Amino acid sequence: MKNIVILGSTGSIGTQALDSINESKDRFRVLGLSCNSGVETLINQVELYNPKFVTVYDIKKYSALKRALAHTNVKVLSGMSGLIEMVTDSEVDIVLTSVVGNIGLIPTLEAIKAGKTIALANKETLVTSGSLIMPLARQMNVPILPVDSEHSAIFQSLQGESQAKIKRILLTASGGAFRNFDKETIKNKKAVEALKHPNWSMGKKITIDSATLMNKGLELIEAHWLFDVPPSQIEVVVHPESIIHSMVEFKDHSIIAQMGVADMRVPIIYALDYPERHENSVESLDFSKLKSLSFGQPDLDRFPCLEIAINACQVGGTVPTVMNAANEVLVAAYLNDKIGFYDISEIIQESIQNFETILSPSLEDILAVDHETRLWVEDRIRHRK
Amino acid sequence: MKNIVILGSTGSIGTQALDSINESKDRFRVLGLSCNSGVETLINQVELYNPKFVTVYDIKKYSALKRALAHTNVKVLSGMSGLIEMVTDSEVDIVLTSVVGNIGLIPTLEAIKAGKTIALANKETLVTSGSLIMPLARQMNVPILPVDSEHSAIFQSLQGESQAKIKRILLTASGGAFRNFDKETIKNKKAVEALKHPNWSMGKKITIDSATLMNKGLELIEAHWLFDVPPSQIEVVVHPESIIHSMVEFKDHSIIAQMGVADMRVPIIYALDYPERHENSVESLDFSKLKSLSFGQPDLDRFPCLEIAINACQVGGTVPTVMNAANEVLVAAYLNDKIGFYDISEIIQESIQNFETILSPSLEDILAVDHETRLWVEDRIRHRK
Repeated sequence: MKNIVILGSTGSIGTQALDSINESKDRFRVLGLSCNSGVETLINQVELYNPKFVTVYDIKKYSALKRALAHTNVKVLSGMSGLIEMVTDSEVDIVLTSVVGNIGLIPTLEAIKAGKTIALANKETLVTSGSLIMPLARQMNVPILPVDSEHSAIFQSLQGESQAKIKRILLTASGGAFRNFDKETIKNKKAVEALKHPNWSMGKKITIDSATLMNKGLELIEAHWLFDVPPSQIEVVVHPESIIHSMVEFKDHSIIAQMGVADMRVPIIYALDYPERHENSVESLDFSKLKSLSFGQPDLDRFPCLEIAINACQVGGTVPTVMNAANEVLVAAYLNDKIGFYDISEIIQESIQNFETILSPSLEDILAVDHETRLWVEDRIRHRK
Repeated sequence: MKNIVILGSTGSIGTQALDSINESKDRFRVLGLSCNSGVETLINQVELYNPKFVTVYDIKKYSALKRALAHTNVKVLSGMSGLIEMVTDSEVDIVLTSVVGNIGLIPTLEAIKAGKTIALANKETLVTSGSLIMPLARQMNVPILPVDSEHSAIFQSLQGESQAKIKRILLTASGGAFRNFDKETIKNKKAVEALKHPNWSMGKKITIDSATLMNKGLELIEAHWLFDVPPSQIEVVVHPESIIHSMVEFKDHSIIAQMGVADMRVPIIYALDYPERHENSVESLDFSKLKSLSFGQPDLDRFPCLEIAINACQVGGTVPTVMNAANEVLVAAYLNDKIGFYDISEIIQESIQNFETILSPSLEDILAVDHETRLWVEDRIRHRK
């Protein structure tokens, strides 16, 4: 029985994790849940999973949550201190970090310091702070288990192997919603069109990141940190069917790939069950229905965000933090029809040029640069109008 | 440094193994080589690899070989006793069994008894005698490392996992030379047409087995023994491009696949280097050139040999031995234009019905049944004319 805390239990990954746990109640006890401000969903989850404690990050929602759970034994917490109290609790075995944004950073560091296994579904953690997280995890001998489907695929492909045998990592990409359009057409595409028909069940922000290929860029940076491989050894392969979730080529030119239907519950439960595998209700891949899988190269001209991310990974320091913060603000603006598709990559580039790079940043440096970049990009968007 | 004996060093697998060893001389010492009767090639190999001993199986070629190597320190042996002396030598670490046919059986058993690691490239060993080989290997704690590309792929996909986690094995098949023809057309196809354009560099017999799907049937029986999985959990997937070499689906519906260019040197050197992987001169798979991979189901009506093999695997005992012996004789007859394509499956069926099944055969039973089946099938072919 593993005791689990889910940070961000009301989001896409959090709810799918609870669905998986719901069919594996003999193996997991839900110890802690958290949400940003969506307390209604959190209250429903409390009824179903009866956790030891819950945290609402938004302090304004604390009183309402506390009242709603007054009839229960559940301890109600709030803010960063609540997240930290939950993840460092002595009963906790594993922390699923599926919060969105930089909120996840400090609780993840605290959980690692407390020796908890991390199931990592928060992109910012490694993109901005891989240089802090990975050495700490190694020092504490804490496993960082990836939840992202691509990183889970790489991690699964590396079972029984070693980092030293890797020749290259082949990171597959659906190519996003606009992969078949030319640059002029993409330029005028609105966010609403990108949000149609994603291969995976995921949030709006990540669907736009998928369309710009920034998502693949962020994943490349994460893969660099998780698997200790330089960006030059990570190749993005466009694979529109999203059946092969990523691959590893070893030095002997043998490639190991992880495949399956595009269902996030597989990588989520794999991270939680690791190193075990158990039966679940996910669909089996039917090769007789599959027909064919196709492959291609990413087009860095139509999708400049990928090259920006590769360069950011190569330079390192605070560059990925600036890139990520700028991207978050710009995607929000794109989703609200305030900017065009290529404004995202252009303003990210500008913001990277605007900030001086700190090559070995502290946690405080990273949080400050993140904050300053957001203000700068918001201002940049305003002045554009 | 691993000391290696290659049984069948002049055949397709043997020569490719020596090519691989030639670029890895720091890791391997060729201790022993053998051929059936092709002593000219063997003499050339002796000059290149300077082994401790060589064996020519055909006693009639012994004197000629002995004379040719008189100027060297190489010990010249012959027949079954020569093979056994080589594989049981105290200096030997690993035996590559790449002889064709039942000749490999006794030396493999003797090598296992002597505690030598087996790199298995001889199909008959497990097809006919899996019930003897596998328990002995477990008892002696001897690894049986598959060299066949499909079994190597499955073995690689199982690294870091366990047999208990397997849901099904997905054995890929090119579909053979006649996969796109209807039954009436296939019926009249000659062997010479099957021998054109194989995906893999391999011998004539296996190319015909590929066209009948008997090759996949034999591999299914081998996979059953190697990975301790019932035939009902082994699914054949037609994949004409031969890029995915086979897969394992685990209980959580995650599939691990091994891929690469169709080059036998990859599985050969993997078995010899196991558990290490080293750089080699094999081509890297270029996904930008790959375009697409396709999949389908095997057609048991057009290719009845596959169903015969599945049934033979289910019944077990001496049935696979009868099937394999009959198939060998029939393929030779087909290669000589003495019988038609569907005579192969029909006469295999007849021969299975003709022989009473011994469910727990001894080595002597297996060798006797193999011999009797061959005589019976030869007679059957003669009487057909």
